Amino acid sequence: MRAGYFVICLAGLTSAATVSAADAPRHYVPSPLPGAAAPAPPFSNGVMAGGTFYVAGHIGMDPATQKAAAGVDAEVHLMLDGMKKTLASEGLTMDDLVSVTVYCTDLSLYDTFNTVYRGYFHEPYPARAFIGVSQLVRGAHFEIMGVAVKSRGAGR
Amino acid sequence: MRAGYFVICLAGLTSAATVSAADAPRHYVPSPLPGAAAPAPPFSNGVMAGGTFYVAGHIGMDPATQKAAAGVDAEVHLMLDGMKKTLASEGLTMDDLVSVTVYCTDLSLYDTFNTVYRGYFHEPYPARAFIGVSQLVRGAHFEIMGVAVKSRGAGR
Amino acid sequence: MRAGYFVICLAGLTSAATVSAADAPRHYVPSPLPGAAAPAPPFSNGVMAGGTFYVAGHIGMDPATQKAAAGVDAEVHLMLDGMKKTLASEGLTMDDLVSVTVYCTDLSLYDTFNTVYRGYFHEPYPARAFIGVSQLVRGAHFEIMGVAVKSRGAGR
Repeated sequence: MRAGYFVICLAGLTSAATVSAADAPRHYVPSPLPGAAAPAPPFSNGVMAGGTFYVAGHIGMDPATQKAAAGVDAEVHLMLDGMKKTLASEGLTMDDLVSVTVYCTDLSLYDTFNTVYRGYFHEPYPARAFIGVSQLVRGAHFEIMGVAVKSRGAGR
Repeated sequence: MRAGYFVICLAGLTSAATVSAADAPRHYVPSPLPGAAAPAPPFSNGVMAGGTFYVAGHIGMDPATQKAAAGVDAEVHLMLDGMKKTLASEGLTMDDLVSVTVYCTDLSLYDTFNTVYRGYFHEPYPARAFIGVSQLVRGAHFEIMGVAVKSRGAGR
Repeated sequence: MRAGYFVICLAGLTSAATVSAADAPRHYVPSPLPGAAAPAPPFSNGVMAGGTFYVAGHIGMDPATQKAAAGVDAEVHLMLDGMKKTLASEGLTMDDLVSVTVYCTDLSLYDTFNTVYRGYFHEPYPARAFIGVSQLVRGAHFEIMGVAVKSRGAGR
């Protein structure tokens, strides 16, 4: 029986139920992920609730220095790899993202960012906002957060 | 009977299914919309998943110049008209928005923005955050993103 | 047949229904909440749709001055108390939050913020992004918005 469809046949009986996002199980992806250093900060890397996965802000932090990685390309790769890993904890991929917000401290890096970013997705892309901000934690040039919903295959 | 599970008994047979946001069809609204210029950027203007529509960041770009429209009122109108058009692609209106985030490079424009903004909605309004940021793409003073869920009419 | 209800059919007949966030009731939490001063701004403090509650941007505004409260601790407490109150309007608690975004005009306040923030939650924490921005309304140092889904108790 395919999820999402209820095929019910029973003569004379009527049943009703309200659909709610609160009905599906909730999971937390801890931060930092196993293997990462330092005490846990007051947030999860992602929370699954009602079939929707909320991905925390990720930055491209070098685990050795606890600062943003040196080099813009390296930083973006590290950030997107981290997001990918968080999604994978719930069996999701970057293509399951439906919306992302990118915060960036220097909009002159827009094209550089996009070049790396395109490599992490198959079209069609998630919705996105790209916002120039004054400062990010740990000297990061970029921070990305997003929302993912498990797609249903080829046609998503 | 526990919410979220449909337990159906027919001649000794029991069936159960978990409700999930992944169950409903997914649609992508491409960017740019038909008629707009330039190659497609790496995002969709909106993504529908599980009955929730994620609207990408929209700015008030003049198609002729590919920059933010001259004049604050014109820019806000162009931005909100674009958002409205994206929503209409999925059969939604501005009143179906449940949450929006407005990014603005100059908070002295707050009242001017609100005057135009009120004209696009019927009360009650969506939830909203209004955030002063350092810079936006294409010289925009404003960028707006949001989430919409189809309302069910008068009482929504 | 009303959306959101599965009316189960007679023997030999097959019925199918798509699950959608549009199926559950929608509620608006007005802004300002009862007791607050000034005319209502063009947003709701929160909107419930499809079992997901979208919390508007909250700041730590002193009702007497209509400006951000004096003192960082006081401001953060006032902001989080306001968010808690908005959640309570829908029978939710801070632990029902699945994702929050914190905007902050001065990242040197990060640790101070976290100390107060931890006091409002039980682990595991919601997903979070913490973003340094140039300016917030009413002289606020912080603004917080979020998304909540009613948890199902101990295991959430």
